[in-house]
Amino acid sequence: MIKLHCQKLLSLFNDENALIYIKGGVVQHRYDTDSELAFRQESNFLYLTGVEEPDFHFVLDIKSGEGHLIIPQRSVQYAVWNGIVRSKEFYQARFSPDYIHYDVELESVLTNRKPEKIYVLDRAQVAGWNLNGIALVEEGLREALVDCRLIKTEQEIEHLRHAGKMTSLAHIEVLKAVKPNKYEYELKATFEYHCVRHGLQFQAYNGIYGSGPNSAILHYVENNRQMKDGELFLIDSGAEWHGYAHDVTRTYPVNGSFDTLQAGVYEAVLSAHKNSIERAKPGVKMEDLHIAAAKDLLQGLKDMELVYGDLDDLMEKNVFALFFPHGLGHFLGLDVHDPGGYPKGVERIDRPGIRFLRARRILEPGMVITIEPGCYFIPALLEPALQDAQLKAYLNVRLLTDMMHFGGVRIEDNLLITPAGYENLTDIPKERKEIESLMLS
Amino acid sequence: MIKLHCQKLLSLFNDENALIYIKGGVVQHRYDTDSELAFRQESNFLYLTGVEEPDFHFVLDIKSGEGHLIIPQRSVQYAVWNGIVRSKEFYQARFSPDYIHYDVELESVLTNRKPEKIYVLDRAQVAGWNLNGIALVEEGLREALVDCRLIKTEQEIEHLRHAGKMTSLAHIEVLKAVKPNKYEYELKATFEYHCVRHGLQFQAYNGIYGSGPNSAILHYVENNRQMKDGELFLIDSGAEWHGYAHDVTRTYPVNGSFDTLQAGVYEAVLSAHKNSIERAKPGVKMEDLHIAAAKDLLQGLKDMELVYGDLDDLMEKNVFALFFPHGLGHFLGLDVHDPGGYPKGVERIDRPGIRFLRARRILEPGMVITIEPGCYFIPALLEPALQDAQLKAYLNVRLLTDMMHFGGVRIEDNLLITPAGYENLTDIPKERKEIESLMLS
Repeated sequence: MIKLHCQKLLSLFNDENALIYIKGGVVQHRYDTDSELAFRQESNFLYLTGVEEPDFHFVLDIKSGEGHLIIPQRSVQYAVWNGIVRSKEFYQARFSPDYIHYDVELESVLTNRKPEKIYVLDRAQVAGWNLNGIALVEEGLREALVDCRLIKTEQEIEHLRHAGKMTSLAHIEVLKAVKPNKYEYELKATFEYHCVRHGLQFQAYNGIYGSGPNSAILHYVENNRQMKDGELFLIDSGAEWHGYAHDVTRTYPVNGSFDTLQAGVYEAVLSAHKNSIERAKPGVKMEDLHIAAAKDLLQGLKDMELVYGDLDDLMEKNVFALFFPHGLGHFLGLDVHDPGGYPKGVERIDRPGIRFLRARRILEPGMVITIEPGCYFIPALLEPALQDAQLKAYLNVRLLTDMMHFGGVRIEDNLLITPAGYENLTDIPKERKEIESLMLS
Repeated sequence: MIKLHCQKLLSLFNDENALIYIKGGVVQHRYDTDSELAFRQESNFLYLTGVEEPDFHFVLDIKSGEGHLIIPQRSVQYAVWNGIVRSKEFYQARFSPDYIHYDVELESVLTNRKPEKIYVLDRAQVAGWNLNGIALVEEGLREALVDCRLIKTEQEIEHLRHAGKMTSLAHIEVLKAVKPNKYEYELKATFEYHCVRHGLQFQAYNGIYGSGPNSAILHYVENNRQMKDGELFLIDSGAEWHGYAHDVTRTYPVNGSFDTLQAGVYEAVLSAHKNSIERAKPGVKMEDLHIAAAKDLLQGLKDMELVYGDLDDLMEKNVFALFFPHGLGHFLGLDVHDPGGYPKGVERIDRPGIRFLRARRILEPGMVITIEPGCYFIPALLEPALQDAQLKAYLNVRLLTDMMHFGGVRIEDNLLITPAGYENLTDIPKERKEIESLMLS
């Protein structure tokens, strides 16, 4: 068990006669077949225990502060198929729980201490167990875990740094491999190769490898198009290390040189990206960062004469949302969209372009966020806007019509918020000159 | 829809006033997070429709023989996040169903024809739908689909051949990359790289990359050990192509040369492997192939003086099961362990070493099977055997004690059964001389 993480959780509960029960993940299958999916531990369980194997349970005694790790009792048959069956002593030494038990003892671990209640994430996880009528409480545990996970501990930061370092190296290999006529999946192959060969066997999410118009599809999944000379290529991918995610985006010219329009859009996004990073520090609100980035982007689009008019007017009319429809960033940790973006009582802002912002929080040291402004030319948004009597006055109709299949640009880094400001966990070239010189070398 | 596959299925139902309903897969998530797993279509749905996208349904009218493809109606918001929303016309042209509907019409498609019953794979899939009391029948559909999928069509064979060809090329890259001091995951990286870069973005199963003692773990998953000079390295991995799996194993000496013991065990397994392939043809029973392979293997172990005694005696005492505890092979197709191994009324043989055989069928042209004999030195099996008064008389106790951490050898190809015998879908070196010369080059 990870003592510091358990202590953080315990500190959020009063000294009551209660237990916390957390179920570890089990192996999932492809539909109703025997085909096992790669096992990835449930994030809350991983946070408290560090255990990355299936079929474990964890019980934390709020009164005593002691942790009980419950391990599966494996058969000889299991040993034949799945290797050495590790002993209680092995797990005791590896995870240092206060107590260790086999899973046959789980019900008695929960009942012997005669707690008044048991906090659970989901009462369905204990359905059918004989718990002597002890009250099950779903309220409170999830919220407490979210609060804990929001501010990273030093151990978590080390894992996040390593995920960032290795993800960055793999991104640079992709940068050097982008060429006209390659298929998008060739770059996916390159990225994942350079993650897996360093032991990062899990991607933190399904990577996006989009060329040409696909670079404007925010959740593109097919990755099977042939890239053409003169197009953009957008890569959004990151590996995880002991469960901790990195989540990075870069956009490159397929042929190694940005043309004038690409350079214009790229610089508009890069400016929003760099300004947002410089603004990130304790005390700043995520939604304010988002609005400021949207303004930066609009200024860039104005400079390109893609949009016309007064900046405040353009903001008020939500013109930014036509080009930048997603949020500026989100929390990052054991999940790529780490929980906690909306504290109790804080609601989503129901406005185009901000609606999808995944976090409205005041930044604090120890938070880890993404900064990912983008600018896209999405037919589903632009075509109706170009027909809209009010909106089209702000838009360069001719140029935007030409750019309908331009694609998009996103530039994303991951920041650890520090007392002084931030530490950038990502280290991949993003200046046009650097990119072009690496691509042409 | 794949007309030929639908016709095969219809031919197994009498001309009755009934519908068949099949639900396509939906995107799954990592536990209760918003982290999407890569979408892989449900195999029965893929078999009948060819559709590899989520949220589809399919209805087959047994009376008319007509197929209804039901497609999801996507919002503008979906277009922003997931790209172009494809039209009914697009899907009509791509999949040629007799009828195409949006999913809002699904219930009426099922009820308008006033069928007497609807065959479903799982009645939970239609729970809560208003079906006017039409009877739901779970019996029969799964069995019929298994019968269909057992004998591959020409289109399926083409996909399986391509999966085999590309998997074989990736295996050869691994063969050339194996070196002392590499980590197992480096070979995983190499294998998957050479699959993905050719557009095979899905592995058919979690690959096994086991060195030294890990080569004897049948379902090894960690793939994180450093390989040492003098050890064996076992790779069991395959990609899929349009859902069709390849499943291949090879075993190599980490340093490029088999030592005497390794060569002995390897030749024993290779002999069982090659003999099994030559025996594979229509009319042969899988369990007979298994028993014959077990005898071949025992003969090899006798030649090495690892076991002593009369072959029939050794078979009767299940000595083979100590070294070869799994089945010789299984069906292969849209699932790596394709269904249908046990026809109605045929049970597993409750005997060590045969218990886990996944198929007892008489081979027919169009079946696709794996041939994967192995020989392992598994402490969980050997240690008790070496203590067993009766068994140890057959065993070279000294040598087997020394070999407790030797690991194991498995050699696996995939065969299409043809009228004349078989077509081997796998093409990777397996002779010791070929392996050694490729590794040393």
